[in-house]
Amino acid sequence: MKVAVIMGSKSDFPKVEEGIKVLKEFGVEVVVRALSAHRTPVQLTECLAELEDNTDVIIGAAGKAAHLPGVIAAQTLIPVIGLPIKSSTMDGLDSLLSIVQMPKGIPVATVAIDGGLNSALLAIQMMSLKYPQLKEQLKAYRDEMAKKVLEDDESFR
Amino acid sequence: MKVAVIMGSKSDFPKVEEGIKVLKEFGVEVVVRALSAHRTPVQLTECLAELEDNTDVIIGAAGKAAHLPGVIAAQTLIPVIGLPIKSSTMDGLDSLLSIVQMPKGIPVATVAIDGGLNSALLAIQMMSLKYPQLKEQLKAYRDEMAKKVLEDDESFR
Amino acid sequence: MKVAVIMGSKSDFPKVEEGIKVLKEFGVEVVVRALSAHRTPVQLTECLAELEDNTDVIIGAAGKAAHLPGVIAAQTLIPVIGLPIKSSTMDGLDSLLSIVQMPKGIPVATVAIDGGLNSALLAIQMMSLKYPQLKEQLKAYRDEMAKKVLEDDESFR
Amino acid sequence: MKVAVIMGSKSDFPKVEEGIKVLKEFGVEVVVRALSAHRTPVQLTECLAELEDNTDVIIGAAGKAAHLPGVIAAQTLIPVIGLPIKSSTMDGLDSLLSIVQMPKGIPVATVAIDGGLNSALLAIQMMSLKYPQLKEQLKAYRDEMAKKVLEDDESFR
Amino acid sequence: MKVAVIMGSKSDFPKVEEGIKVLKEFGVEVVVRALSAHRTPVQLTECLAELEDNTDVIIGAAGKAAHLPGVIAAQTLIPVIGLPIKSSTMDGLDSLLSIVQMPKGIPVATVAIDGGLNSALLAIQMMSLKYPQLKEQLKAYRDEMAKKVLEDDESFR
Amino acid sequence: MKVAVIMGSKSDFPKVEEGIKVLKEFGVEVVVRALSAHRTPVQLTECLAELEDNTDVIIGAAGKAAHLPGVIAAQTLIPVIGLPIKSSTMDGLDSLLSIVQMPKGIPVATVAIDGGLNSALLAIQMMSLKYPQLKEQLKAYRDEMAKKVLEDDESFR
Amino acid sequence: MKVAVIMGSKSDFPKVEEGIKVLKEFGVEVVVRALSAHRTPVQLTECLAELEDNTDVIIGAAGKAAHLPGVIAAQTLIPVIGLPIKSSTMDGLDSLLSIVQMPKGIPVATVAIDGGLNSALLAIQMMSLKYPQLKEQLKAYRDEMAKKVLEDDESFR
Amino acid sequence: MKVAVIMGSKSDFPKVEEGIKVLKEFGVEVVVRALSAHRTPVQLTECLAELEDNTDVIIGAAGKAAHLPGVIAAQTLIPVIGLPIKSSTMDGLDSLLSIVQMPKGIPVATVAIDGGLNSALLAIQMMSLKYPQLKEQLKAYRDEMAKKVLEDDESFR
Repeated sequence: MKVAVIMGSKSDFPKVEEGIKVLKEFGVEVVVRALSAHRTPVQLTECLAELEDNTDVIIGAAGKAAHLPGVIAAQTLIPVIGLPIKSSTMDGLDSLLSIVQMPKGIPVATVAIDGGLNSALLAIQMMSLKYPQLKEQLKAYRDEMAKKVLEDDESFR
Repeated sequence: MKVAVIMGSKSDFPKVEEGIKVLKEFGVEVVVRALSAHRTPVQLTECLAELEDNTDVIIGAAGKAAHLPGVIAAQTLIPVIGLPIKSSTMDGLDSLLSIVQMPKGIPVATVAIDGGLNSALLAIQMMSLKYPQLKEQLKAYRDEMAKKVLEDDESFR
Repeated sequence: MKVAVIMGSKSDFPKVEEGIKVLKEFGVEVVVRALSAHRTPVQLTECLAELEDNTDVIIGAAGKAAHLPGVIAAQTLIPVIGLPIKSSTMDGLDSLLSIVQMPKGIPVATVAIDGGLNSALLAIQMMSLKYPQLKEQLKAYRDEMAKKVLEDDESFR
Repeated sequence: MKVAVIMGSKSDFPKVEEGIKVLKEFGVEVVVRALSAHRTPVQLTECLAELEDNTDVIIGAAGKAAHLPGVIAAQTLIPVIGLPIKSSTMDGLDSLLSIVQMPKGIPVATVAIDGGLNSALLAIQMMSLKYPQLKEQLKAYRDEMAKKVLEDDESFR
Repeated sequence: MKVAVIMGSKSDFPKVEEGIKVLKEFGVEVVVRALSAHRTPVQLTECLAELEDNTDVIIGAAGKAAHLPGVIAAQTLIPVIGLPIKSSTMDGLDSLLSIVQMPKGIPVATVAIDGGLNSALLAIQMMSLKYPQLKEQLKAYRDEMAKKVLEDDESFR
Repeated sequence: MKVAVIMGSKSDFPKVEEGIKVLKEFGVEVVVRALSAHRTPVQLTECLAELEDNTDVIIGAAGKAAHLPGVIAAQTLIPVIGLPIKSSTMDGLDSLLSIVQMPKGIPVATVAIDGGLNSALLAIQMMSLKYPQLKEQLKAYRDEMAKKVLEDDESFR
Repeated sequence: MKVAVIMGSKSDFPKVEEGIKVLKEFGVEVVVRALSAHRTPVQLTECLAELEDNTDVIIGAAGKAAHLPGVIAAQTLIPVIGLPIKSSTMDGLDSLLSIVQMPKGIPVATVAIDGGLNSALLAIQMMSLKYPQLKEQLKAYRDEMAKKVLEDDESFR
Repeated sequence: MKVAVIMGSKSDFPKVEEGIKVLKEFGVEVVVRALSAHRTPVQLTECLAELEDNTDVIIGAAGKAAHLPGVIAAQTLIPVIGLPIKSSTMDGLDSLLSIVQMPKGIPVATVAIDGGLNSALLAIQMMSLKYPQLKEQLKAYRDEMAKKVLEDDESFR
């Protein structure tokens, strides 16, 4: 079980950190890379070639004109999750549209703006098709989440 | 290999049709359902219970305040793809935001507005983790797509 | 006279607090719950079953892809008020559209983004159909509001 | 049981027609008026004075800078439903924001852009607080809706 | 030469203050009022009746579903300038659209979001049709503005 | 009484036509020009010089990055009304923001997108400061408008 | 003098056609290609390698999540003009933001949505730095444009 | 090699500073001016006349209804780069649309909101058509950028 998390810039790290932590808690090996689709296109292609045969899911995180997830998806058959990062202008709408509105043929599985945790959970759900034990872990994770909500709920009753 | 395509309304069918055709071409069994998260919540829950143990991926297609994919995702561990449908107002932005901006814990893998084909290709990519033959087929599909683009390109040169 | 205020997350409490205070001032019994449509769908359904026969109005408060009010409305005949909460991205537009753009058949009475006070006043207006004394109280409340505006106005003249 | 439907312009009639039909099917008396908050403010005030003591709910339908529902709400204690009408520019966003973003103190229960049917169903839900028989009718109406969805669903299986 | 500045809430005062100062510098009498179209509709109408015969221009400043300028314009023949105030959500877009998108027949002369100074300068330009001395003063004001820009420009050369 | 209507392109004529007709009905002399701020900046400046001493109000109509009204306002002391024209993309939002969001010092009195009639009525209201007879005519015009609304209203009662 | 026009899909051709015509009228050699950044990334890279040493400017035209111009810009030192194409959803906003919001280091010179003509004129202006004769031609072209505007203007006077 | 950077207000300086620094590092002469299209239109025209024969590229930086770059482009044959500056409202969308949506005939090469660095790099790319040595420098600059990204990448591996 291996997920690669590729950010467009090291400044995106705080937005992917929570997801990486969860992936590791689920026992998933995580490769973290900081490669730009625009500033390091050749190295990105090299990185993807390395990942192709031993990686289950790739998470691409980027802001503004966020081409990274789409550019990754164009060069691999591995499922790609797009994580739009909010930057200092346009409240994340530019990142979201740049990632989700992919043209016919090359999809990117997009999650919420700054949705780092959900990008990890989605990767786990995808991998659970192949590794059924993840389904059990995910079920426990959800039960834990529900329990926390119910404790909160209890505190208001 | 089985994908369930659940639309919020039968009027969404033209937007999912192309994806269903591609899924079938890849040899995937497709279950098509028209169930509303709001008008038939109980039957939707029943449908999801039936799908839980024999379905690889669920595609949820809906417009406007498009809750369907998120409501499905909340009730299943199967990965859920959200397909935002453009309705007569707001140019699809309402559907997109209602699907992609899922809160922490329950992700929906969102594709482009009216991106029926890509929802199917994303489902295939997810399933390829478990069924490696799909990767071969997907590779052939992409080669075919590229060939068509190159023919178009040739016609302009 | 009973209103249930259901928030999607305990972090929404500061946005509903002012409304709860007003409801109580009007002598309305208030049930406060923190239940997520996505993380605790079963418990939400149970909660709604409990409320069905003894509650006049339900206020659902949620942010981002704010499905909670619509999911509530789908499971009850009680009138549902939707309160969109602004989150850290998209300036509340995602919450608003996810709540107000409900498809045909299941309406949600939507108020302004972060409009906790107005959600309470709307609940009171709805209940005043059944409890005419609320109309008197509401009239007094509005007179008080107007008086405050006129005092402000006086200070500028 | 009486609902007043006030449109800002007679050109809005096609958008309120479906709701009026449903209200009548539920046995509700419907008063239909075409009065502009801007072109006929005095007559609007007169109309509201007439309605005050014998009307359960007012639906205000308007487009563009849609002040009508808010202006009505400011002059009555009757609950007011706002129906944003899409005009030739801005895809309904101007109407929606002008209606839903009401400032503190005077709420408008807003439904979806061009959501005429839902404005009527919301009025019925509000009135069901006072007239319990409406709850039965609403239940039957929802059952009928669900039945139609399930027939559609059947046709795809 | 008399301008009335009507704000929807006293909290809008910091946004109109700069304009009031400029109006006074031009020798214009300024009436400042804080009246809400929704919370004090009757008093607003009374205020407008008082202004009708002795006021040249009215500036209406309001945020969110900013009906105030349009409601004023509907009740007076005096030209009305609308000043959209940015509130805590939607970045001023709701205020702008609620003011500028007035339907046929009742225009509001809208200036930029939080454009208090420009609302005053526009009022002066309108009044200059009647009071030609204002044109001279405006010319001097613009020359002064240009001079400041040129000093800034000089500092960069 | 003289108004200049300057459009950025002759294709904008259908959007200004209704306003020109109303201006003429009010007895206002109308100069119609088609000059682009970008393609004919010199001729625009010449035109404005001609207008400066004999024109009461200038209406500038333009679409897309609609600089025309602001460029006019920068070169004249005459009050300038900006009329945003909807073009084939962005639903008029680009025109509106380009016109209304004028920086400090040079205001443009902006009306609704495609609001040709209102641009004319606003010009008349501005001129009524100087020509009191216009106030009488405007009153009659509004009475006529109200009469039409009331006839429509009558037809629904 | 050589410009390459690369579209993301042959369906974009009608949007680039007018620009190609103008480039040829200016005597510029035009290479037209239809290559997708996502479906044919390898062939795009090959194409760019061919262009690198003999092309002055590249125009990249694409819609939706329009990565093409940015992906080109990342792989060449030639200046790249981005032409956002409006697709069936989001009114061109997705294309525009995906092209213009390029992160630090790799700029794309973006023109208006569907602004094919302007992309060509911008290419000519860039090339005029190297080929001064283009400046003369551009001057004549602008004079011709101005003449047409003035003829239109004449027809309204 | 000479670039003129014209800002609409001295308050825009922090947004252009980084670009000016890079231009100077590339050995480009930089003229910095602060001139407003609206407050100093005559001086702007004079400035452009001075620049016409000795400047390679002009960068125009402005916020809100950002007419400056378009107004410059209308008065010169020099290629003009538009730099939209985010102001206190509308998150930069107003500046972007006011600059990029230029009508037919007069293009502005628009970069990202607050994209000062990219405006400089784009100017360098344009000038590299005429001064081939810039291409070498740009290549080195990009290599340096890539190196920094790879160092960041290394730190995560």
